[in-house]
Amino acid sequence: MAGTEISAITTKLLEAKKAKGITFADLEQLLGRDEVWIAAVIYRQASASVDEAEKLLHCLGLSDDLVPELTAPSVKGLGPVVPTDPLIYRFYEIMQVYGMPMKEVIHEKFGDGIMSAIDFTLDIEKEADPKGDRVKVTMNGKFLPYKKW
Amino acid sequence: MAGTEISAITTKLLEAKKAKGITFADLEQLLGRDEVWIAAVIYRQASASVDEAEKLLHCLGLSDDLVPELTAPSVKGLGPVVPTDPLIYRFYEIMQVYGMPMKEVIHEKFGDGIMSAIDFTLDIEKEADPKGDRVKVTMNGKFLPYKKW
Amino acid sequence: MAGTEISAITTKLLEAKKAKGITFADLEQLLGRDEVWIAAVIYRQASASVDEAEKLLHCLGLSDDLVPELTAPSVKGLGPVVPTDPLIYRFYEIMQVYGMPMKEVIHEKFGDGIMSAIDFTLDIEKEADPKGDRVKVTMNGKFLPYKKW
Amino acid sequence: MAGTEISAITTKLLEAKKAKGITFADLEQLLGRDEVWIAAVIYRQASASVDEAEKLLHCLGLSDDLVPELTAPSVKGLGPVVPTDPLIYRFYEIMQVYGMPMKEVIHEKFGDGIMSAIDFTLDIEKEADPKGDRVKVTMNGKFLPYKKW
Amino acid sequence: MAGTEISAITTKLLEAKKAKGITFADLEQLLGRDEVWIAAVIYRQASASVDEAEKLLHCLGLSDDLVPELTAPSVKGLGPVVPTDPLIYRFYEIMQVYGMPMKEVIHEKFGDGIMSAIDFTLDIEKEADPKGDRVKVTMNGKFLPYKKW
Amino acid sequence: MAGTEISAITTKLLEAKKAKGITFADLEQLLGRDEVWIAAVIYRQASASVDEAEKLLHCLGLSDDLVPELTAPSVKGLGPVVPTDPLIYRFYEIMQVYGMPMKEVIHEKFGDGIMSAIDFTLDIEKEADPKGDRVKVTMNGKFLPYKKW
Amino acid sequence: MAGTEISAITTKLLEAKKAKGITFADLEQLLGRDEVWIAAVIYRQASASVDEAEKLLHCLGLSDDLVPELTAPSVKGLGPVVPTDPLIYRFYEIMQVYGMPMKEVIHEKFGDGIMSAIDFTLDIEKEADPKGDRVKVTMNGKFLPYKKW
Amino acid sequence: MAGTEISAITTKLLEAKKAKGITFADLEQLLGRDEVWIAAVIYRQASASVDEAEKLLHCLGLSDDLVPELTAPSVKGLGPVVPTDPLIYRFYEIMQVYGMPMKEVIHEKFGDGIMSAIDFTLDIEKEADPKGDRVKVTMNGKFLPYKKW
Amino acid sequence: MAGTEISAITTKLLEAKKAKGITFADLEQLLGRDEVWIAAVIYRQASASVDEAEKLLHCLGLSDDLVPELTAPSVKGLGPVVPTDPLIYRFYEIMQVYGMPMKEVIHEKFGDGIMSAIDFTLDIEKEADPKGDRVKVTMNGKFLPYKKW
Amino acid sequence: MAGTEISAITTKLLEAKKAKGITFADLEQLLGRDEVWIAAVIYRQASASVDEAEKLLHCLGLSDDLVPELTAPSVKGLGPVVPTDPLIYRFYEIMQVYGMPMKEVIHEKFGDGIMSAIDFTLDIEKEADPKGDRVKVTMNGKFLPYKKW
Repeated sequence: MAGTEISAITTKLLEAKKAKGITFADLEQLLGRDEVWIAAVIYRQASASVDEAEKLLHCLGLSDDLVPELTAPSVKGLGPVVPTDPLIYRFYEIMQVYGMPMKEVIHEKFGDGIMSAIDFTLDIEKEADPKGDRVKVTMNGKFLPYKKW
Repeated sequence: MAGTEISAITTKLLEAKKAKGITFADLEQLLGRDEVWIAAVIYRQASASVDEAEKLLHCLGLSDDLVPELTAPSVKGLGPVVPTDPLIYRFYEIMQVYGMPMKEVIHEKFGDGIMSAIDFTLDIEKEADPKGDRVKVTMNGKFLPYKKW
Repeated sequence: MAGTEISAITTKLLEAKKAKGITFADLEQLLGRDEVWIAAVIYRQASASVDEAEKLLHCLGLSDDLVPELTAPSVKGLGPVVPTDPLIYRFYEIMQVYGMPMKEVIHEKFGDGIMSAIDFTLDIEKEADPKGDRVKVTMNGKFLPYKKW
Repeated sequence: MAGTEISAITTKLLEAKKAKGITFADLEQLLGRDEVWIAAVIYRQASASVDEAEKLLHCLGLSDDLVPELTAPSVKGLGPVVPTDPLIYRFYEIMQVYGMPMKEVIHEKFGDGIMSAIDFTLDIEKEADPKGDRVKVTMNGKFLPYKKW
Repeated sequence: MAGTEISAITTKLLEAKKAKGITFADLEQLLGRDEVWIAAVIYRQASASVDEAEKLLHCLGLSDDLVPELTAPSVKGLGPVVPTDPLIYRFYEIMQVYGMPMKEVIHEKFGDGIMSAIDFTLDIEKEADPKGDRVKVTMNGKFLPYKKW
Repeated sequence: MAGTEISAITTKLLEAKKAKGITFADLEQLLGRDEVWIAAVIYRQASASVDEAEKLLHCLGLSDDLVPELTAPSVKGLGPVVPTDPLIYRFYEIMQVYGMPMKEVIHEKFGDGIMSAIDFTLDIEKEADPKGDRVKVTMNGKFLPYKKW
Repeated sequence: MAGTEISAITTKLLEAKKAKGITFADLEQLLGRDEVWIAAVIYRQASASVDEAEKLLHCLGLSDDLVPELTAPSVKGLGPVVPTDPLIYRFYEIMQVYGMPMKEVIHEKFGDGIMSAIDFTLDIEKEADPKGDRVKVTMNGKFLPYKKW
Repeated sequence: MAGTEISAITTKLLEAKKAKGITFADLEQLLGRDEVWIAAVIYRQASASVDEAEKLLHCLGLSDDLVPELTAPSVKGLGPVVPTDPLIYRFYEIMQVYGMPMKEVIHEKFGDGIMSAIDFTLDIEKEADPKGDRVKVTMNGKFLPYKKW
Repeated sequence: MAGTEISAITTKLLEAKKAKGITFADLEQLLGRDEVWIAAVIYRQASASVDEAEKLLHCLGLSDDLVPELTAPSVKGLGPVVPTDPLIYRFYEIMQVYGMPMKEVIHEKFGDGIMSAIDFTLDIEKEADPKGDRVKVTMNGKFLPYKKW
Repeated sequence: MAGTEISAITTKLLEAKKAKGITFADLEQLLGRDEVWIAAVIYRQASASVDEAEKLLHCLGLSDDLVPELTAPSVKGLGPVVPTDPLIYRFYEIMQVYGMPMKEVIHEKFGDGIMSAIDFTLDIEKEADPKGDRVKVTMNGKFLPYKKW
């Protein structure tokens, strides 16, 4: 996708993971963290602790020299304003189509404020379905009411 | 938010709903449809059946003349490329920050393909939490594998 | 500024305020809220309580019919991606020039996370200075650490 | 963040700082300058004097050859029109949401003009709070009234 | 075309194909897949099976080491928002000019929903015509009705 | 879809068509023209002859006064650079994902040149399929080789 | 020029000026202010004093009711990111072509800082020249050195 | 500034100039050309004659091999649509704020046409001022009336 | 075409022209000016003399009240950055595809400088051709060499 | 010009041409093709035949190995959406200013359709003129009427 540059460390980690035949589910068990969060560490969108970084690197057979790169707060974001990759675009489309309806419903349930994207978790499950498996994405974020002052 | 024009029919429905003190939860019970989907009908991002449109209009005390407007497939989308409303922006940010990690995990679980945003449902729940209530958003879309030909 | 449409209610409130010769400092005393927050209510970027809305409208000699408009969560944002108004642009420039340095310093002091723009206050003071008065803007937002999961 | 290229000299300085375990607070004491300004020098958004550049380089164990790079007026700016990094985006959001209210309040207090982003200082403090620490950002810029001619 | 970077593997495959004088029609026969789909694999917009990748590489005289690159789900998309290449632009123009008419006709025939671009095939034929040969492009995608919930 | 303004004449024609319960298939029979082209006339992306305009208006019970509007060459195009309507976006995505592969195959079959979007027809068919009906779109455009001079 | 909307008050003032046959040079004499600044007041890019506004309105035969509109600090800016009007574009081109050379020369003469666009005057003169008259534009802004802190 | 890449030859010339401690004022005397124009040659926005290029290179102690690079008409322009460097941005702001007023005044003085940015000179002077030195920029361009035909 | 608003006066003139059955060729004879230039006056991209405006208005049966609107220098430009109308886009495409080659050839013939778009004429002719008529567009602009100073 | 990358082969051909002192006029004679078309081949916007490529390479003293690069259909286009180079910008401005007038005149002469940019030639001539030489650009493209179907 134009503009999405995958950094050197991400490439190194993904190649080692592929070479070793390790899945994200395996890493989930190893680290005791959700696989999406671990993928976010690998894509440098989340920061691991030193301990988590070491476990991850050992498991992938990589050197501890990479620990600082995995523990530093990173500059985040995907790049292209409108993603062109079809899988990622669908999440953009959901925001375009259902953004205002979600806003209405959330304000009715919670008042004026937002769902945090920081105090936030995201889980992906595979739901077997005879008419075709389904992707279930659960987002869970703290509601932050606007402060008055 | 600049560029987000709320159409006349949406305004009319929301005002009637407010005047009558009806909640989306009430509408959910009335129509037997999820409140987010009903909000999407009101924002003209989803199409009701004639029966659903009539029920909705009666409940809001509005004329049946609006049935055709609520049942026609609409031109969809929010408008601004990057939303400026903070609540909606957070969903854009999630796509920016977690888009590539989600793509990795979904491809590992399902192979090459996407999550449908059409054969798709979206549910919003309020999760009570002593440290501050949480917004739980569940997206559920059919996995569509790329066809080869 | 191109694209910045000032809504009808904002215009009505500002005109009444001007006609009555009431300052934001007066409103601050009346409502017991900061003047910037009150200006944000007038620009429909913040939501007042029913009580605050009534006080504000009475003080400006306007009808209570406007209460619902001032208490509803609004669609927020200024509009133009890059503001052209010189006063507002300077805040954009500060983000362009000092954004990365601020990020470094905040991460060093707090770890990975962000400053909330929701659980947040903003104060403007006039600092007398013989070489030319100074504008002092104080932003105060809760630090939100990234959640791991 | 797409488009934000961190220059070679910035990377070199940050790595040396990390390797030596020196904080911005340490540099503040050493140079007698605010830590945000020092971070701005490191990101090449501000220019040091020869003396300041030498002190900084010695402290980080780097060669004086870099003095010219740290003292030259640089080409400034972050890059992406709308930042995708969540920490930096929040400052963009503040400008989007509170830009017009701030403009109203500043004009009421000062008349037509702007807050300088050049004759300007920016300070970041950590405010301990039992409900979660807070980030306090203080901007202080000279008010510049529009000249008539 | 600005922004369209052709990846190293695509260049390698196209050069080998050219050097060997193999056409897409030849590859179609070899792999039992449509030539457009094969071109999409070469441009890394579609993923081959291991068997298909091996056949393709052998036929082009290239090493099996490239199999993983051809079988992984890729990051998809062309790049420039509006293509500048005249051949590709015409398909953008068709969407601009005939998009709304197609939407009307499809909704009338099928109801509210979309044509899938995933469960989808695309065929290109050369139609001889004395007034000038014609390009015939046939797109065939599953209709996906919007799910209600 | 933000930026897509449907003109007054299009709205008038579509409403009359709906009120009379006339389908595009009916219009196809009446005018002896393809339904997509007729929809393009209604959306003012194509120009009818006086005779075709009169037939169309009579059939919809509208006045001949509209003939000049339907026969004049119009200013064409959809509006938003990237369409947000999901149905129309899929055609944009096809151009993003399959644009370069199509270019390769067309150049191999025809040499350097383009498919005309002017000397061009577009047909939409519904293909019954037990696994879900399919949309079949056939584009047929003259190949235009680049002229040398 | 797309996006440049001329406000109602500007139109009213320009029409009155035209109807009365008054030139900017006349207004310059009347108000004791430069004609460019007066034109900026008329375009609501600068704010007049009450006295200046009254003089201007009287001279144009317009009502004093417009005084508040001419004295309020306005939302400034032209609108289109890249101006399409050829006269205005040339100034954009000058900034594009000579921006970096000017930056070098100004930094060499003054050090790190900027030329103020607020404490600033702009003068336009007509220079007779047998080979074609020349436009002479003189900008004069205070140099603002970057503050260290 | 994102997108402003300084070319290899510009860097080489500026470094030699700095190493030799030569100012633009020195070059102005040497070449008998204005310092801004010379800076424009160094930034490859203007083309020198062979003689001027040789003088410039000798003075900077660089090889004549660079003559062709300095004498060829270059591809001009700064790059970013909206400059982020504060010094250069101010000129963009001037065009945004004063563009329409300047257009009015120039048309009143000269009729319909433009100021040339080609048959054009630009001079920068330092004006000493006890309240702070001032930057004086004088632009002088031929007026080009629109040709009728 | 999105963003291209045709002004009220243009619409009035074109409708009168159509109602009277007058062609641009007729206007060319009447005014002694080229038809493209006259169309540019009608689209308010060029300014007529009072005499030309009167002749044009009389011929179209319109009131002299419109003379001021046709003689004032207008704010020029089409609007959309990239035109979506296929006829106009082709001229954009020509600039995209042949821009650099034209630049090379013009520089070789003339040296560094540009072709004026102001001291400029544009002529359109219909060239009969048995294989299909051809559009011949002749642009003729003064070469403007870059001034040195 | 930002974003315009000149490819390696173009640079190689232009340098050889310069070193040999060969003009486009010389190449026109050698190849029997127009100089603009030849420049387009060198910029890889047009494709030569094997014979033409060989002649061109021999004449420039370059190896036949480059023949495949000059004969393949290329990915076309200049790059920046709005060109910043002043010479090329003028052609963009012509499209902005005269686009709609040209559209009117062409439609009046030819009906609904476009001028082809593919079945198209472009010629540049130098017209001597005592008031300054003129650039004459002649575009000649087949008229393509919209097909009805």
